[in-house]
Amino acid sequence: MKIQTKHSEVIFGADSWNALNAWVTTHDYSTIFVLADTNTQTHCLPVFKQHVTFKFAELHMPAGEEYKHITTCVSLWENLSELGADRKSLLINLGGGVVTDLGGFVACTFKRGIDFINIPTSLLAMVDASVGGKTGIDLGPLKNQVGVIEKPKMVLVDTNFLATLPENEYRSGYAEMLKHGLIQEPAYFDTLSSFLGKEDILPHIYHSVGVKAKVVSEDPYEHGLRKILNFGHTLGHAIESHFLVSPTKNRLLHGEAIAIGMVLEGFLSAELTGLPLDDAHRIKAVFGKIYPPVSFDDNTITEVISMLTHDKKNEHGNVLFVLLEKIGKPVWNQSVSNELIRKSFEFYAA
Amino acid sequence: MKIQTKHSEVIFGADSWNALNAWVTTHDYSTIFVLADTNTQTHCLPVFKQHVTFKFAELHMPAGEEYKHITTCVSLWENLSELGADRKSLLINLGGGVVTDLGGFVACTFKRGIDFINIPTSLLAMVDASVGGKTGIDLGPLKNQVGVIEKPKMVLVDTNFLATLPENEYRSGYAEMLKHGLIQEPAYFDTLSSFLGKEDILPHIYHSVGVKAKVVSEDPYEHGLRKILNFGHTLGHAIESHFLVSPTKNRLLHGEAIAIGMVLEGFLSAELTGLPLDDAHRIKAVFGKIYPPVSFDDNTITEVISMLTHDKKNEHGNVLFVLLEKIGKPVWNQSVSNELIRKSFEFYAA
Repeated sequence: MKIQTKHSEVIFGADSWNALNAWVTTHDYSTIFVLADTNTQTHCLPVFKQHVTFKFAELHMPAGEEYKHITTCVSLWENLSELGADRKSLLINLGGGVVTDLGGFVACTFKRGIDFINIPTSLLAMVDASVGGKTGIDLGPLKNQVGVIEKPKMVLVDTNFLATLPENEYRSGYAEMLKHGLIQEPAYFDTLSSFLGKEDILPHIYHSVGVKAKVVSEDPYEHGLRKILNFGHTLGHAIESHFLVSPTKNRLLHGEAIAIGMVLEGFLSAELTGLPLDDAHRIKAVFGKIYPPVSFDDNTITEVISMLTHDKKNEHGNVLFVLLEKIGKPVWNQSVSNELIRKSFEFYAA
Repeated sequence: MKIQTKHSEVIFGADSWNALNAWVTTHDYSTIFVLADTNTQTHCLPVFKQHVTFKFAELHMPAGEEYKHITTCVSLWENLSELGADRKSLLINLGGGVVTDLGGFVACTFKRGIDFINIPTSLLAMVDASVGGKTGIDLGPLKNQVGVIEKPKMVLVDTNFLATLPENEYRSGYAEMLKHGLIQEPAYFDTLSSFLGKEDILPHIYHSVGVKAKVVSEDPYEHGLRKILNFGHTLGHAIESHFLVSPTKNRLLHGEAIAIGMVLEGFLSAELTGLPLDDAHRIKAVFGKIYPPVSFDDNTITEVISMLTHDKKNEHGNVLFVLLEKIGKPVWNQSVSNELIRKSFEFYAA
């Protein structure tokens, strides 16, 4: 199983290991490095070792969004230098979105760019980070503020890695899949709204990757259509950033934050772009069944709104939203007043 | 006057300011930033201000190769964030190669890439960094170890900036021009060997940019031909890096280091690839007339050789050189023994 576009090549299932071994055999790499974090080193690297037929050196980073930071890149650039990496080296990133985003950035910038391959091990990274060539790191509280767009040579999706993925991480990835339904296919949203388990998820990952690949191949540089992938992300990112920097709050996973963002932006869609209010309620009900509720006091809402102006989707200082005209039909570049944003939090809390 | 290829657009002389103002007028930038270092802020920014018709915000960095470092990038990314830069912002880099290389890297990676324009103010940056889209920073002592390849939207060359350029900086840039003669045009090398002054240099800058643009457009990603631009740079970079980290030695300017590199690699060419020994002596004489001599003790030579293995032009752990079959006819991917490298230093010192 394979999804190939000009900008992505994602290979699914057991075949993917053969494809990886074949790729390495036919490319004359001087050295191969595998980047894992403290989680994937324990849970995924042993699986990786069983499948690959080539030698490699290991690189490590601590697990967690808080390490998606330039200092981690500096360590890895230095590790690569010390281990004699050159322009013909290959970097394989084995992990969730933090590892694939950061590892991709390290590869794209080391000696002005070496080949890299991503093996996403979380559901989120499989359905989201696997396509589109976005690499990046956070800058303080600002998510993905620094990065480049560059396609990995190959992306491998093996759902066996999901067996050791914590439940909340699974739900986090699931939010992006629900998003694919909301922005493109009402029937897909219906299918996913019963919350499918890991044992049934492979064909849907394939479907989600297909949705994203199609959108990205039509607009790789996010001049227009690709923006629809940001549904739920304008407020979702701001919420995620706020919880990341707050000294007193537990952080939210990316999908948990954008799940809230989709409920909020569903309400905004009902207010501004004609989404039937019933559908906004239905979106709220589906997410409410899967994701734990989060409470927002007035101060938090104010801080989330102030975070918005730093979202990198902004242009000309305006905060622009993707909203829905109906389920499956998004519109982008929508302005929203702060007043209405506050009301959306009331809708979420009600 | 203009040199345009798929990968570069360089505009020369007074016209260039009109072109810049026109570019800004026809592009709907949200904000424009100008990056200068402590030198160009004093000497070049006032000139810049006289010519431009648009508003901009200033960004600053300290002057010097030692600030071509990731911490400077982090400051600038943070400055851009604080000042509300978004994806539709423009960054104009006003300075020597450190400013254009580092500023280019900052622009290419900020929010996954914003537009940038380079205004090189040193001779070196005019003839070298102006073409080819290399951006980058150093990693400790390893020069340009981190970066990307991305073309600026425009490069402006106004030789009026040379008036305030120190003499040693002028000589540094001149070394790259001599290199263009050595790798492509014997007659051009002859013309330059009398060491032309600032007042006569404009047409030769144009000529040099043309030589480089032609090479780069034939091989933008340095798979083959573009490597010839590294003549003198394999040993030159290692020497430059060594002097940069040495606590007791004064640093060498880039061109001063590659001038030595060209003399050394001229000797290696005579030993290995058929350059007449007379020509190796002639190269030595021309550079000896323009550049101050540098002495190398045995320890220094050993350390320079150990630096070589980190040069990013390496592939598969081999240190590869560009050598000359004759003046104007280079060959690349040449291996050289450490023994012969030591002998080249004896040739240089003799």
